[in-house]
Amino acid sequence: AVASPAIAQSSPEIKWRLTSSFPKSLDTIYGGAEYLAKQVAEMTDNKFQIQVFQAGEIVPGLQALDATAKNTVEMSHTVSYYYVGKDPTFAIFSAVPFGLNARMQNSWLYQGGGNELATEFFKKHGVIGFPCGNTGTQMGGWFRKEIKTVADLSGLKFRIGGIAGQVLQKVGVVPQQIAGGDIYPALEKGTIDAAEWVGPYDDEKLGFQKVAKYYYYPGFWEGGPTVHAFCNLEKWNELPKSYQTVLANAAQCTNSWMSARYDMQNPAALKRLVAGGTQLRPFTNEVLEACLKATNELWAEISAKNADFKKVIDAMQAYRSDQYLWWQVAEYTYDSFQIRSRTRG
Amino acid sequence: AVASPAIAQSSPEIKWRLTSSFPKSLDTIYGGAEYLAKQVAEMTDNKFQIQVFQAGEIVPGLQALDATAKNTVEMSHTVSYYYVGKDPTFAIFSAVPFGLNARMQNSWLYQGGGNELATEFFKKHGVIGFPCGNTGTQMGGWFRKEIKTVADLSGLKFRIGGIAGQVLQKVGVVPQQIAGGDIYPALEKGTIDAAEWVGPYDDEKLGFQKVAKYYYYPGFWEGGPTVHAFCNLEKWNELPKSYQTVLANAAQCTNSWMSARYDMQNPAALKRLVAGGTQLRPFTNEVLEACLKATNELWAEISAKNADFKKVIDAMQAYRSDQYLWWQVAEYTYDSFQIRSRTRG
Repeated sequence: AVASPAIAQSSPEIKWRLTSSFPKSLDTIYGGAEYLAKQVAEMTDNKFQIQVFQAGEIVPGLQALDATAKNTVEMSHTVSYYYVGKDPTFAIFSAVPFGLNARMQNSWLYQGGGNELATEFFKKHGVIGFPCGNTGTQMGGWFRKEIKTVADLSGLKFRIGGIAGQVLQKVGVVPQQIAGGDIYPALEKGTIDAAEWVGPYDDEKLGFQKVAKYYYYPGFWEGGPTVHAFCNLEKWNELPKSYQTVLANAAQCTNSWMSARYDMQNPAALKRLVAGGTQLRPFTNEVLEACLKATNELWAEISAKNADFKKVIDAMQAYRSDQYLWWQVAEYTYDSFQIRSRTRG
Repeated sequence: AVASPAIAQSSPEIKWRLTSSFPKSLDTIYGGAEYLAKQVAEMTDNKFQIQVFQAGEIVPGLQALDATAKNTVEMSHTVSYYYVGKDPTFAIFSAVPFGLNARMQNSWLYQGGGNELATEFFKKHGVIGFPCGNTGTQMGGWFRKEIKTVADLSGLKFRIGGIAGQVLQKVGVVPQQIAGGDIYPALEKGTIDAAEWVGPYDDEKLGFQKVAKYYYYPGFWEGGPTVHAFCNLEKWNELPKSYQTVLANAAQCTNSWMSARYDMQNPAALKRLVAGGTQLRPFTNEVLEACLKATNELWAEISAKNADFKKVIDAMQAYRSDQYLWWQVAEYTYDSFQIRSRTRG
């Protein structure tokens, strides 16, 4: 094909690299980046190509944001709550304890001002971010013994990271930061008492059901966590407008793709786990109430010294209050009846 | 700009017309088509343009599918359950009583085989369809008197159409087919006893709160209705591959855009309605159970004589059973606690 100069300017050939925070073996969350790259390539007649690297190929998983900000790679696919060490505000754009469920999270980000707050905040860190995946409400994790009271949490060595770990610490848990591949042996040996990961489909792959009997729900620290696609801000600004819209649309499609795919895969995995002897247990109201109280205390503490955090957590909480006011009317009563009548449908 | 022949082939200038089934005044559901057109134009540097017409400008709202199939217009934005008169199978790809909620509907269509069944079915009608909007669970509508028992439904003149009307007829309702603009005067005069429309944001615009006191929930016949973008199949096949992917991605983004936007708008509208005196009422379990029984009877009757319907309703119901098995674990218990603790968050 002979390219004329005028056309070449509006549709240049661009090759970007994307580092994922996930290994290929977690095919759905890692697969999101490949889905994104495929959409972008197809929409631009392969002129805009994004090559996807799994965690560790270019940089370790938790350095994805830094690598993007420094332009080691142009893009990353990661979870913004991994970066709470830089600033706890990062967490709110993905998930915080007792935050929004997946649909509300999308509504807040896309239509309720959340993405505008995120863009303003991410800019300070040299990147722009796009919601690019959601797991839905996660499970609360795998426990070697039952947890019925807050007292049962005391001294419990629980593999859980970030801001959720800080909340649980307030109710007696000893949070453990352990990378994905090291959790299984730690739980098997009893070095830790419990571990949380994602949900039935991903958890089953890591084999936790073989070394812990009780599978708790819900993962109240991840009601609807958003995975983000980050772009180096300068590189983003250099893209032609059409490519920017292509990339934004591809990210938004990946967001719904991942949610739809986890929803498709989780029921069968849950059935296999339960058939294999896994015991499902809900967190008791006592545990949930204590953790909510601890969460509100932590938000007050952080807000007192971090104006960005205060602005964003207040916005999210106001949105949440309105969302659940409405959710409890049509959505929740519909789901309630559907659950009650499930076997007679 | 001087276009070279080779590039012109892969990025031709194309102008399509789209007829919406909705008036401009319903800014969110109508606005979906404008959002779609904007994304497509931006992604193709304005080379692929879709001009949007509101219902009645080219053809009446309920003739959108026919106009697309006959290539009066290349595209439409409509709800496939409007076309149950041609074949009741159309309804299952948008919403049927006691069907999937919005997130499950997306999971089924995108990842669970739903879109493949839809494509096979729509092909027989000369179109290809893309999910392109969702309202979330709708409200059950406006009633001039309270409905507590199945006996209260007997002889009730209720503005409700399509396959949901057939279900309600089995429990004594006299379904009325009335176009949007004519509902208000009919309800005001008492020509009808009740009317359903969408949800707080759209219903408030039509003013039903002024002429009916009781606002029932949930709209169990629309747990998560999908709005579709239909393309004339031949015109679709003539598009370059890149434009096909652009259009498919834009439709998928519009799908989440509309859901996020309704979710953003409904809470404030609900608060205004309740502040103005509207009485919220849940359908009683007796009413829901009777309608579920009627629904299952109707599916058996239609399935006995329509193989397409049987195949698709069986697939949807199997998916629903698995989805709610999982949903009741993490999502539902999370939402339950969030609703209980809403005012303390």
